[in-house]
Amino acid sequence: MSEFNMEDHPHRRYNPLTGEWVLVSPHRAKRPWQGQLEKVAEEKRPEHDPECYLCPGNDRIGGEKNPSYDGTYVFTNDFAALNLDALKGGVNEDDLFRAESEQGICRVICFSPRHDLTIPQMDVVAVKKVVDLWQEQYLDLGSRSEINYVQIFENKGSVMGCSNPHPHGQIWAQSSVPDEPAKESLRFKAYFDKHGKTLLADYLVKELDKEDRILIENDHFVALVPYWATWPFECMIISQRAIQHLGQMSEDEKTALAAIYRDLTIRYDNLFEVSFPYSAGIHQAPTDGEEHPEWHLHMHFYPPLLRSATVKKFMVGYEMLGNPQRDITPETSAERLRMLPKEHYKG
Amino acid sequence: MSEFNMEDHPHRRYNPLTGEWVLVSPHRAKRPWQGQLEKVAEEKRPEHDPECYLCPGNDRIGGEKNPSYDGTYVFTNDFAALNLDALKGGVNEDDLFRAESEQGICRVICFSPRHDLTIPQMDVVAVKKVVDLWQEQYLDLGSRSEINYVQIFENKGSVMGCSNPHPHGQIWAQSSVPDEPAKESLRFKAYFDKHGKTLLADYLVKELDKEDRILIENDHFVALVPYWATWPFECMIISQRAIQHLGQMSEDEKTALAAIYRDLTIRYDNLFEVSFPYSAGIHQAPTDGEEHPEWHLHMHFYPPLLRSATVKKFMVGYEMLGNPQRDITPETSAERLRMLPKEHYKG
Ligand SMILES: O=P(O)(O)O[C@H]1O[C@H](CO)[C@@H](O)[C@H](O)[C@H]1O
Ligand SMILES: O=P(O)(O)O[C@H]1O[C@H](CO)[C@@H](O)[C@H](O)[C@H]1O
Repeated sequence: MSEFNMEDHPHRRYNPLTGEWVLVSPHRAKRPWQGQLEKVAEEKRPEHDPECYLCPGNDRIGGEKNPSYDGTYVFTNDFAALNLDALKGGVNEDDLFRAESEQGICRVICFSPRHDLTIPQMDVVAVKKVVDLWQEQYLDLGSRSEINYVQIFENKGSVMGCSNPHPHGQIWAQSSVPDEPAKESLRFKAYFDKHGKTLLADYLVKELDKEDRILIENDHFVALVPYWATWPFECMIISQRAIQHLGQMSEDEKTALAAIYRDLTIRYDNLFEVSFPYSAGIHQAPTDGEEHPEWHLHMHFYPPLLRSATVKKFMVGYEMLGNPQRDITPETSAERLRMLPKEHYKG
Repeated sequence: MSEFNMEDHPHRRYNPLTGEWVLVSPHRAKRPWQGQLEKVAEEKRPEHDPECYLCPGNDRIGGEKNPSYDGTYVFTNDFAALNLDALKGGVNEDDLFRAESEQGICRVICFSPRHDLTIPQMDVVAVKKVVDLWQEQYLDLGSRSEINYVQIFENKGSVMGCSNPHPHGQIWAQSSVPDEPAKESLRFKAYFDKHGKTLLADYLVKELDKEDRILIENDHFVALVPYWATWPFECMIISQRAIQHLGQMSEDEKTALAAIYRDLTIRYDNLFEVSFPYSAGIHQAPTDGEEHPEWHLHMHFYPPLLRSATVKKFMVGYEMLGNPQRDITPETSAERLRMLPKEHYKG
């Protein structure tokens, strides 16, 4: 008699960070695709684009002019979703109608003056400058009394809602802790209280031992496909030491984070030989003035592509109403990513 | 001094069904859009397409032939994400690596033999046949011991991952209750235990009194934009009576559900004068053999479009890593939908 085996049989996997599940249907990968195809944006871009509102020296939509920066550059989002002027107040009618004012700061980070580059095409020294800026920004924003959480993220590619190919990321810093890090906080705390270690420290030891979902390992960080990955090529970068937030990172650790961020995105680009779209971001300790020994800094990568440069995974009907679903297993994804060349396909 | 006001100031709203929040940034609606544009699929389709695997009499990808059906037609998905053969088993290593086998049945429902129609273009009698089939399917699938939850849904439009424009929906029925209805179950139960009424019954009374988020009301159902809507034009259809599941619905109630489903999707099409994409589905009581007095049947509509037929809302970086965010308020969306003609723009 054959036995339940996760390479062949439909199953659910549990995400211990969020308490949610993903449905895995490995046998479904053979399904033909006749639906929407994504555009591949492989035009050659100039090093400087006079029309780009992020290039050095150009005018922004809000009317300001960018300086002639030559590393990274940060400014307040001209169309910020949050601001500090917001008046305080709220509503609560029988727990059915609940609203609260929210204060915050939204910033944009240009990764490079070069309009034509992306993280995997920059060198480690240049990517390190991005990590330096993340650290500065986390400390600067986090020190304000109005700010209790700092969300750093990057939307890459038009399929991920990015409206400008100039390499850049964003920071939304705010007074409350948003849902996703709040879910993790809860579970990290319960785990730390029980085991005296962070959940991700224990998880990482086990993954390094099992090997089959590990992609890249350097002195301070590991990149892997988590056991509970929902997107086809979802990855996490986890610090080997239980670092709580960017503010605690040494120069060596920042260089190692820059290196693994670059290495992972090179693999991504090599997968379909295309500038690989994703949303990525860092989850780290809230800046609420409390100690957070339970927190363990990590970076999530959520890329939408499934089979090729043009076929993405749609998280729609069943996924929106039930729970996320995936076809290929996380182990198969990890194997495919691991086997790719370490050098960028464009050389 | 001015006061906190939800039409102008950034705020968070609480979703009492899921326990999650949405960030509302009303002032951000003025942001110009330079990003990805969606294709508008407004080609004229034939009444019967010889290439379509859902049209009557045609061959399916799996090799079977559709009968010459003339109302609705249901069959087992040729690329089912779930099946009943799945071997039982599971893994649990220190609560960090948890997986469980999952059994289920996936079916496809053709809404009409006509390849060129959609729900808003069908008459109420024809849409009623779809509701009849939902009811039959819920009772049939739900009566099986392996099936504890029946998820009925529709992905409409290629932007929502729909690969065939022939009007159709799906059913994924399975042994465990997926995350989204499980979150609702938990909160419905807590509310019912405390108040002796369903959460949605009390919510609906208050919404009917306030009026500003109500779109359509008929004898048995109400369509509204929920207070906590995340998608720009997200809507809910809620039964006036606390119906727990489709199995309890009378002929009159089924006709009323068909009518409001059609009326709402007509408004949607009229908004940008385009066949309006969405994912929609019914949340109802699990079929686990228990009584569920706390459950209150409802239908969610998650449409992606934001400003026009070609500009959608991207739920990406901040939304994936923090929580959902919206620009226009639910009240503004409701007002816009309410003011649209009741007749389909194609006449
Ligand atoms: O089953 P279909 O229509 O081929 O596929 C569509 O709906 C499914 C259920 O929401 C999703 O998992 C797929 O990503 C989507 O493309
Ligand atoms: O701020 P941007 O780049 O204009 O906008 C993009 O990222 C935001 C944060 O994830 C999203 O809310 C928008 O939907 C998306 O288009």
